[in-house]
Amino acid sequence: MTQNNSDVIFVGNKPPMSYVLAIITSLSAGNLKEITLKARGQAITTAVDAAEITRNRFIKDLKVSKIAIGTVEMPPREGETKSRMVSTMEITLTKK
Amino acid sequence: MTQNNSDVIFVGNKPPMSYVLAIITSLSAGNLKEITLKARGQAITTAVDAAEITRNRFIKDLKVSKIAIGTVEMPPREGETKSRMVSTMEITLTKK
Repeated sequence: MTQNNSDVIFVGNKPPMSYVLAIITSLSAGNLKEITLKARGQAITTAVDAAEITRNRFIKDLKVSKIAIGTVEMPPREGETKSRMVSTMEITLTKK
Repeated sequence: MTQNNSDVIFVGNKPPMSYVLAIITSLSAGNLKEITLKARGQAITTAVDAAEITRNRFIKDLKVSKIAIGTVEMPPREGETKSRMVSTMEITLTKK
């Protein structure tokens, strides 16, 4: 897959529907066939919600082609002294 | 936490470390080689955390062999009239 028909959406703390719209918009533009949602921490649930809502309600021929989990080290927040380990998740959705 | 004699752990709203201990306990008992974490809603993040903490800190030869996401319909909560769609996730960990 070339970079031209693949895209990444970073999922944060907005409502799932914001990311559903971003997915639909990306997949509607040009010949994009694949999109990867990246999330960490609590946003992992939002990423799963966005993927599921898009598949079930809007783009029925969208498949979950890959899911990966991992861990990243985040710098300490203000007032903290130690860095934190945060879980990450990537969900790749592919259009048939 | 609900845990039966099989290789499934249901992840709820306890801290991730509770489930890490459940995973380690299950895998230490007998010749169990595989365990599946099941979670829904906000507990999805906890399931990812538990899997990652177990792999990174405790059982280094544990592999994520399968991840699946889905949706279930939940009955309405008290005071609500409509059922809700809730995201689910299953993470299968396999010991080499």
